[in-house]
Amino acid sequence: MSRIITIGRQFSSGGREFGKHLAKALGIAYYDGEIISAIAERSALAEDYVAQVVEQRIQSYYPVTVANTLSVHPGDAVYMVTRNIYAAQTEIIREMAQKSDCVIVGRCADHILAELRPLRIFLYASMDARIDRCRKNGGDAAGKSKRELAREIRRIDRSRAQYYRFYTGKTWGDKYNYDLCLNATGTDLAVAAEAVANMVGK
Amino acid sequence: MSRIITIGRQFSSGGREFGKHLAKALGIAYYDGEIISAIAERSALAEDYVAQVVEQRIQSYYPVTVANTLSVHPGDAVYMVTRNIYAAQTEIIREMAQKSDCVIVGRCADHILAELRPLRIFLYASMDARIDRCRKNGGDAAGKSKRELAREIRRIDRSRAQYYRFYTGKTWGDKYNYDLCLNATGTDLAVAAEAVANMVGK
Repeated sequence: MSRIITIGRQFSSGGREFGKHLAKALGIAYYDGEIISAIAERSALAEDYVAQVVEQRIQSYYPVTVANTLSVHPGDAVYMVTRNIYAAQTEIIREMAQKSDCVIVGRCADHILAELRPLRIFLYASMDARIDRCRKNGGDAAGKSKRELAREIRRIDRSRAQYYRFYTGKTWGDKYNYDLCLNATGTDLAVAAEAVANMVGK
Repeated sequence: MSRIITIGRQFSSGGREFGKHLAKALGIAYYDGEIISAIAERSALAEDYVAQVVEQRIQSYYPVTVANTLSVHPGDAVYMVTRNIYAAQTEIIREMAQKSDCVIVGRCADHILAELRPLRIFLYASMDARIDRCRKNGGDAAGKSKRELAREIRRIDRSRAQYYRFYTGKTWGDKYNYDLCLNATGTDLAVAAEAVANMVGK
């Protein structure tokens, strides 16, 4: 079975934690934020801007810093930048997967690496479990009500679904696009990762 | 993790094969057809009739043998018999799961055993893979076209979905109703079962 593993995940379902456990269990590389950093370096855009664009609603906002450097219509500028980021990202993901076995979280890697037939995992969880995870992870979640957090989680999921639909033409989270869908609610992600590692073959 | 495992499965996705591998890997009991036999013995209905009713469209047909023994409206008779079979089946599934760890394929066992917090697995596969499995399993599939088999498969799935909806109020195959959804397309089910067995803990 493929030792190139892609992980799609609902926001705050534990995709990164699971991915790190899995990469560790298999002794292979793990990528998520690193991809964004690499893209940022190549495209010479500020990293925090890239971090914002990736997985945000396509064409949804218009950064002044970019518009200033381009003479085209603002909407087009954002569109082009977003497309360029995706193209750079695609190139980097392909490079990484060709170099060595790896776990890649998010970024449509399942679609980008389709030719390599990766093991495609999707992680999901109940809203309550995801709210709990938000709170556990700290940040500004502490000051927000359950309702506010749920709204925020759904908003981010919608962004991810739109992003996925836009670049792959497929439905994000639809089980047919994955080999394994794992409900993270109440699941020990280290144990689950160990099991998947056994399935893949250490 | 629970060693009571329920398996929902699309028709011809390999649920029985996977379930048998899993039960063997864990050294625990396996049930599917046996449940029907047990129900048949208890309810004193012919086994083949029970086999037909279970997982067929609810209230969809009207067996003369049953109507003859009941003085109520035919529709009600079928309804009552179907309900009685489900009640008997529920009782037996509970008994089995209380007696020992087990793998149960189908029969809304995930819902029936919810209090025991079973590991709930759903197996699915592409239509092509399911048609291939139909053909491999022999029977009358050999004489049917791909289109005919696909139609038959979809019909059986619709029956399962209706059955599940009727008794659980939930959507059959919806990932939130399961802990693990496994795409059987091109998957070695023995290997996958071994991995799940490791996750459960042998």
